[in-house]
Amino acid sequence: MSDLLERLRAGLPPEALITDPDVTASYAHDMASFCEAGTPAVVVLPRTVEQVQHVMRTATALRVPVVPQGARTGLSGAANASDGCIVLSLVKMDRILEISPVDRIAVVEPGVVNAVLSRAVNEHGLYYPPDPSSWETCTIGGNIGTASGGLCCVKYGVTAEYVLGLEVVLADGRLLTTGRRTAKGVAGYDLTRLFVGSEGSLGIVVKAVLALKPQPPQQLVLAAEFPSAATACDAVCRIMERGHTPSLLELMDRTTVRAVNAMASMGLPETTEALLLCAFDTPDPSADLAAVGELCTAAGATEVVPADNPAESELLLQARRMSLTALETVKSATMIDDVCVPRSRLGAMLAGTAAIAEEYGLTIGVCAHAGDGNTHPVVCFDHQDPDESRRARESFDAIMALGLELGGTITGEHGVGVLKKEWLARELGETGVELQRSIKAAFDPLGLLNPGKLF
Amino acid sequence: MSDLLERLRAGLPPEALITDPDVTASYAHDMASFCEAGTPAVVVLPRTVEQVQHVMRTATALRVPVVPQGARTGLSGAANASDGCIVLSLVKMDRILEISPVDRIAVVEPGVVNAVLSRAVNEHGLYYPPDPSSWETCTIGGNIGTASGGLCCVKYGVTAEYVLGLEVVLADGRLLTTGRRTAKGVAGYDLTRLFVGSEGSLGIVVKAVLALKPQPPQQLVLAAEFPSAATACDAVCRIMERGHTPSLLELMDRTTVRAVNAMASMGLPETTEALLLCAFDTPDPSADLAAVGELCTAAGATEVVPADNPAESELLLQARRMSLTALETVKSATMIDDVCVPRSRLGAMLAGTAAIAEEYGLTIGVCAHAGDGNTHPVVCFDHQDPDESRRARESFDAIMALGLELGGTITGEHGVGVLKKEWLARELGETGVELQRSIKAAFDPLGLLNPGKLF
Repeated sequence: MSDLLERLRAGLPPEALITDPDVTASYAHDMASFCEAGTPAVVVLPRTVEQVQHVMRTATALRVPVVPQGARTGLSGAANASDGCIVLSLVKMDRILEISPVDRIAVVEPGVVNAVLSRAVNEHGLYYPPDPSSWETCTIGGNIGTASGGLCCVKYGVTAEYVLGLEVVLADGRLLTTGRRTAKGVAGYDLTRLFVGSEGSLGIVVKAVLALKPQPPQQLVLAAEFPSAATACDAVCRIMERGHTPSLLELMDRTTVRAVNAMASMGLPETTEALLLCAFDTPDPSADLAAVGELCTAAGATEVVPADNPAESELLLQARRMSLTALETVKSATMIDDVCVPRSRLGAMLAGTAAIAEEYGLTIGVCAHAGDGNTHPVVCFDHQDPDESRRARESFDAIMALGLELGGTITGEHGVGVLKKEWLARELGETGVELQRSIKAAFDPLGLLNPGKLF
Repeated sequence: MSDLLERLRAGLPPEALITDPDVTASYAHDMASFCEAGTPAVVVLPRTVEQVQHVMRTATALRVPVVPQGARTGLSGAANASDGCIVLSLVKMDRILEISPVDRIAVVEPGVVNAVLSRAVNEHGLYYPPDPSSWETCTIGGNIGTASGGLCCVKYGVTAEYVLGLEVVLADGRLLTTGRRTAKGVAGYDLTRLFVGSEGSLGIVVKAVLALKPQPPQQLVLAAEFPSAATACDAVCRIMERGHTPSLLELMDRTTVRAVNAMASMGLPETTEALLLCAFDTPDPSADLAAVGELCTAAGATEVVPADNPAESELLLQARRMSLTALETVKSATMIDDVCVPRSRLGAMLAGTAAIAEEYGLTIGVCAHAGDGNTHPVVCFDHQDPDESRRARESFDAIMALGLELGGTITGEHGVGVLKKEWLARELGETGVELQRSIKAAFDPLGLLNPGKLF
């Protein structure tokens, strides 16, 4: 242990090392409840690529596990410490190195906060779409590690689609450059994409080349009230089938609506069973919203309310963005699922989730990126009640089983981490897991990078 | 050899095996000139996944290399046979299994021809963007193997962005399912993307889930004449910097324009140094083209001619699509480069290419997906003149060196194959190649799949 600290100190400035156990303990876990987390030996906060290389060389020499971290806003325990590990926090590597409007790229260090980058590129008339709920605090490095999504995905896709190239420090301290800064490129296997979503288990991302879009017009939002989840899901299918490309298409069930109203007095309609929010950032969003409004009415919407202006639109989005936080106040604890199904199966997924809530005698609020078929059922329970806690975990699992049965995946955007690692094997199958493990072994033969995650 | 045939016959119908050397010889190579190609032992044309598994089990048992093939329209020799190999042609597995307008996906076998799929999804109001020049004959399996691009990429990206999930027969005959049929999904490492562009070296794709877009409005094209490549490239930068999203943005130099006119009397303006084609498939393409026309004029265009109607637009696109073929008629032979640079360096790339043509005393015609920075310099030479042939190869290499120097890649969309394998190592670096080789070893430990390609 003292050997570890001594060696780390040889290549890091004093302020880059935290050893006070009270402080290091605060780096033990991300925002997922009920995921195991160990006690780190030390937290390091490097500012340069060379310092990261020094940390990894030291870790390899002494066979010490390393857990990379961003802002620890993840929801799967992927950034949780293991006992005796080095927590490698990248938050101090937070420089935006380049923004090019002609090439439509940004080059950034991993600790840049998503919102900081978003606002910086806006000033150049550019747009970085990925917008997880935690966008005001989460880092680009964390977004890359978990391939995170957000409200934008129905039109703009997930983080993976914006990562063109990477610089990565490997487990043994070597520096690898992957990908490109060009619009296209097909030279060799796509290692860039392999790192995206790998939860820090293959290497430490120290630089990223990100693709940007031109900034679209301000989006306008419509809210539609439905008498049932089924009719709301039918509307989602009609909207997508008709060829519309909304910039968001979100669903909040009645439990979610009530929780949001209770937390922030948003005045959302509590009598409806499902509230659908749809937005367009097209040249003529009012016309597009009118067309979608008609489809909602045809599907059975009881009320369709287009926002008159961007301020009203922003208010509706705020309500949606606070959904998970609001649902966390329903009971003393929550577990948040992230099942994504083909959107044609969204109705079946929501009906099945309601049946699971009934069966286990629990409140399960659902908000969903409906346009993606990506649901976040939030299992609410009293963590001091052992029986309710057991039922919560069982219902959480039952929801993942249902998602797989419907042709979906256990995680649309939150990742596997610790929370779902038993489930990953079920989704991938034996051959898939074997190949994934062989890739892990090729990149990290000593198994030092974020052990105990994913598999 | 007879053992090989006997074993293959045990699991394949008679018509799925070709052994006549005159016929098998016609399967020896794709459309790249001057790439080594061996003599196949046998060509197999399976129709089912089980038959592909049988072929791979046989190959593994007897340690016989396997070269997977689509329509052999590739331009890098990636589908070229090696001596004594089994050529595994997937063209008979050509069923479209599903098209879903709600989920916006198609599920296809690898032998489906790109144009057949494109037209089939059009009937459902959907759009499969990837459109390589060979789209009327090339197969989806080949497109996936080479991650191929096309004219659409400046707005819609390459094939990789449309592959959601795969079924793959591994070297040992096991069947692997990767990815998803959902809009999002982040469960484990992205094996799907690893197969895209792997040129058949990691496994045999036998089924693909493809993402589709809603069919956009018919595009309208504008042609702009420039007095120099530099002014045309300046226009490209202005168009992209201003936040436009054209559905194509193509450049033809004077050599290309003349070659196209000579081949098909297209009446293109032969007095200009560079012809730029720009299109929009937006709701109001005329307005967008007018804005772009002004930018072209400001950059120095001598003439700006928007097409009046879709028929005129289609004629201009035909001219662009026949560019490579037309340039092939300039001399007895050609070598086609595929360097992609950041679009801000496009002007430097074209100036450097002209200097290389001058230095080596050769005609090098250039057409380019200008909006992507992806240039196709076509080195024209007399293959019966040994000195000119040598200079052609040297200039071909000099163009790749220039591309790397400008921060680009040796291949934007044609792949590595045999043609550029010495160059891949230069682009990836030692660590990159080592990791790529370790992935190859994990998937294909006996090295049977498409040996001698990529590395």
